[in-house]
Amino acid sequence: MPSVSDVIAATTDAVAQDSAKAQVLVRTSGHLTGTVETTLRSGRHTVVVDEPAALAGEDAAPGPVDYALIALASCQAVTYRFWAAKLGVELEDVEVAVEADLDLRGFLGLNDDVRPGFGAVRIAVTPKGPESAERYAELTEAVNAHCPVLDLFSNPTPVEHRVAVAA
Amino acid sequence: MPSVSDVIAATTDAVAQDSAKAQVLVRTSGHLTGTVETTLRSGRHTVVVDEPAALAGEDAAPGPVDYALIALASCQAVTYRFWAAKLGVELEDVEVAVEADLDLRGFLGLNDDVRPGFGAVRIAVTPKGPESAERYAELTEAVNAHCPVLDLFSNPTPVEHRVAVAA
Repeated sequence: MPSVSDVIAATTDAVAQDSAKAQVLVRTSGHLTGTVETTLRSGRHTVVVDEPAALAGEDAAPGPVDYALIALASCQAVTYRFWAAKLGVELEDVEVAVEADLDLRGFLGLNDDVRPGFGAVRIAVTPKGPESAERYAELTEAVNAHCPVLDLFSNPTPVEHRVAVAA
Repeated sequence: MPSVSDVIAATTDAVAQDSAKAQVLVRTSGHLTGTVETTLRSGRHTVVVDEPAALAGEDAAPGPVDYALIALASCQAVTYRFWAAKLGVELEDVEVAVEADLDLRGFLGLNDDVRPGFGAVRIAVTPKGPESAERYAELTEAVNAHCPVLDLFSNPTPVEHRVAVAA
């Protein structure tokens, strides 16, 4: 398995010659497999998503909004790993905790002034290693400027929605 | 297990009496457990996130951006289920496929004009059941106005970031 530094060097070289090499198509698909349980394919993986009993599920797996935070927390961790390698900052581990406020009145249409999504999100990260607090602060600044899922949370993404009715 | 209609009725009643009943705190936490593998807790569940070899991982699990799409696809499915019950639209199943464009030059800092997150996202849904195309179109409109993760993708969410250095 190539190291993070190998991957950065190889990708940087490949993209310098052909920027199309940097284009990735990410996808998933699936359907309802229970009252509110969804089963999805993602590459060679199968992922189950469910809801707690309070939302008519069986808590067989995390829910959609949980997976959104899992995406953010893990993206932060990976971006710390990559940018630590890029900036030459030693990083032994990084702990990430994410929490978010959700007001179900938005989802359930009980108050039009309440957005359906998260009202606010809070991230706490603890980078671990021998470097100074200043170096980890510098690393954090680079991470937050380049973390794909933090960008997804912080800024609007154009979404095109198409509905097909089954034959 | 209560039905979706039971949950909607009970939550609507509870929230009418005390809007604090609609407030949910969603959270996850964990740390790097491999080169780019992260292991996170979400309620009683443990979720592993990895990357493909092209990003220095072992493809042990979907990656952060994959989980972001899994969150969106499953949230669409659950929101179809809830709003079908709310609007009295019969729904046997819903298929959801999501794809997104990602340009790794943003993540890797190779071009400052490229955003780190998704450039665009496309959702295709196929609601299944005996209703007319018009009824499913009406349902889709309600779903897209109330889907928490679609809101997260489409609109900015305030994110507060705090870094602590390990003692």
